[in-house]
Amino acid sequence: MRIVLDGMGGDNAPAEIVKGAVEAAALTDHEIILVGKEEEIKNELEKCRYEGDRISIVHADDVITMDDSPVKAIRRKTESSLVKALNLVKNGDGDILISGGNTGALVVGSRMILGRIDGIDRPVLASIYPCLGGDPALLVDAGASSEAKANNLLEYGLMGSIYVEKVWGFENPRVGLVNIGTEESKGTSVTKDAHQKLKEAPLNFVGNIEGRDVPFGLCEVLVCDGFVGNIILKLTEGLAKNILKLVVSKLMSNLKTKLAALMLKPQLMELKKEFDYEEYGGAPILGVNGPVIKIHGSSTAAAVKNAIIKGIPYAEENVVDIIRKSMLDLEEIIEKGEEE
Amino acid sequence: MRIVLDGMGGDNAPAEIVKGAVEAAALTDHEIILVGKEEEIKNELEKCRYEGDRISIVHADDVITMDDSPVKAIRRKTESSLVKALNLVKNGDGDILISGGNTGALVVGSRMILGRIDGIDRPVLASIYPCLGGDPALLVDAGASSEAKANNLLEYGLMGSIYVEKVWGFENPRVGLVNIGTEESKGTSVTKDAHQKLKEAPLNFVGNIEGRDVPFGLCEVLVCDGFVGNIILKLTEGLAKNILKLVVSKLMSNLKTKLAALMLKPQLMELKKEFDYEEYGGAPILGVNGPVIKIHGSSTAAAVKNAIIKGIPYAEENVVDIIRKSMLDLEEIIEKGEEE
Repeated sequence: MRIVLDGMGGDNAPAEIVKGAVEAAALTDHEIILVGKEEEIKNELEKCRYEGDRISIVHADDVITMDDSPVKAIRRKTESSLVKALNLVKNGDGDILISGGNTGALVVGSRMILGRIDGIDRPVLASIYPCLGGDPALLVDAGASSEAKANNLLEYGLMGSIYVEKVWGFENPRVGLVNIGTEESKGTSVTKDAHQKLKEAPLNFVGNIEGRDVPFGLCEVLVCDGFVGNIILKLTEGLAKNILKLVVSKLMSNLKTKLAALMLKPQLMELKKEFDYEEYGGAPILGVNGPVIKIHGSSTAAAVKNAIIKGIPYAEENVVDIIRKSMLDLEEIIEKGEEE
Repeated sequence: MRIVLDGMGGDNAPAEIVKGAVEAAALTDHEIILVGKEEEIKNELEKCRYEGDRISIVHADDVITMDDSPVKAIRRKTESSLVKALNLVKNGDGDILISGGNTGALVVGSRMILGRIDGIDRPVLASIYPCLGGDPALLVDAGASSEAKANNLLEYGLMGSIYVEKVWGFENPRVGLVNIGTEESKGTSVTKDAHQKLKEAPLNFVGNIEGRDVPFGLCEVLVCDGFVGNIILKLTEGLAKNILKLVVSKLMSNLKTKLAALMLKPQLMELKKEFDYEEYGGAPILGVNGPVIKIHGSSTAAAVKNAIIKGIPYAEENVVDIIRKSMLDLEEIIEKGEEE
């Protein structure tokens, strides 16, 4: 298998990307292709003293920056590392793409260059949601499209379920719909309709999940539109970071508690890990004709390595083909239902 | 002024409601009218040894329960404490209503019995959002309607701004629109449109607020639809409670840290207060022809007392009239804009 890395994507590119690739190469037999400015990447590889033959470079002259407008950038920057990397996957010269670059460009580029899987109306960006004291959940949509129709939410549930089963290895994952009440009758016209569709779909639907239950691992797949998904992810991030900060500042507020707090420091640091997304790997784009994984723009080498290792099953387990087949099955089910 | 209390609304009614009324009566010269089963309320008043003459009872035979369907209950249970209490305000025999009963019935009843303020398309339930380490914000809509048009969001901003200024006493409160990015171009078609309308409205609009910034007091009024508002409130509640629980369990995990944690217990308990909604009073319903305040169904006497005392300015400062006038002004502004 050939893993394609966007060597220029992210704040710490290419240094951390290359380091992560070298670390991953020690853990897997797959080939790694770094796409980007050859000289810079070579330099970084030399710094890492990499002497193996499983990392190669494909030169790309241009870079899509964080400020670039996604659609324009994909159309015009044909020599960019991202466009070249996507084309490697499209043409069968790479089996999976991992990038820490401009999220919008990665989503749009995946749609435009790899194309949608037949039957999928809207490819989507999923994200790992760190549940408290347990396994994470896959949140779909994490912000690829702010609006969604009921059918889109159904697609999100189906694709998320397949991904979590094949890539995370959870059997028969539970799928929940983020909503404002547990009753079927609650929500907008879209969530009410989606509830019915998910209930009838061939997946393990556990019903509506309220905001207060989102962090508590009631299901492995959380389905919502991109607006709500974005708010959930960012609110959780903001609250977690700052509640822990508040705890520390309260504890450090006087000498007596300061001493006690210093004793507790290792435990408090451990808590931070509960919210560390990087341990679980990157965020998949689902519904396009090829496995694509987004990593955080500020990813360290360790996060890059994790994303590579944890992402491998996305390609190896043929998740894209399974999604394609499940869409055909779904069409049959719907047609059969209409005939009856 | 006459403050009307739904004596039968909530899990702890009438006991805690009556106790709260007695506590409030010691702090204010206003009259308090308790609406509900006369015998039960009298009993509770006797238990409190209340001997003043500023608390009176209006008998109501029936009660709207938490399981009642809102519209049906308001139409059919005409002898319920809630319907009788709303009619007191409608007929000028009461100046403000405070209830801990069925939220849906309170919102629907307020719309049906008091009626919408002219120019308001959709009355709304606002809620107090506890910002970390600072003043709270008013979140509008907290779940009265799951969907909203851009004009509704504009109304929410205007009413929220007036309420926070007059009832909380914050001059020129900052109004923010909950959205998935800070740029004007971000969001759904509704939030994009609402952004422009809020920008042009006579209020202190500070732009879009992202999920991660919601808890940090960047504005005093947070505008969003009821779906997003419900998710934000419940997710915050769930996360805050459980992050603190996680902190305590981590700290208690071994003997050494257990001793240190016990020393820190008072500080940890103080943290809980940061998320205590009750201190700030109840949640106003905005946009109806009379001041109505919702308190939590599980409110204690202290929360009832707080809601009464903090709610007084909603009636005393003529907030309803000010909203009515601002709607007329807004119409003029819009008409003038269209003529130009």
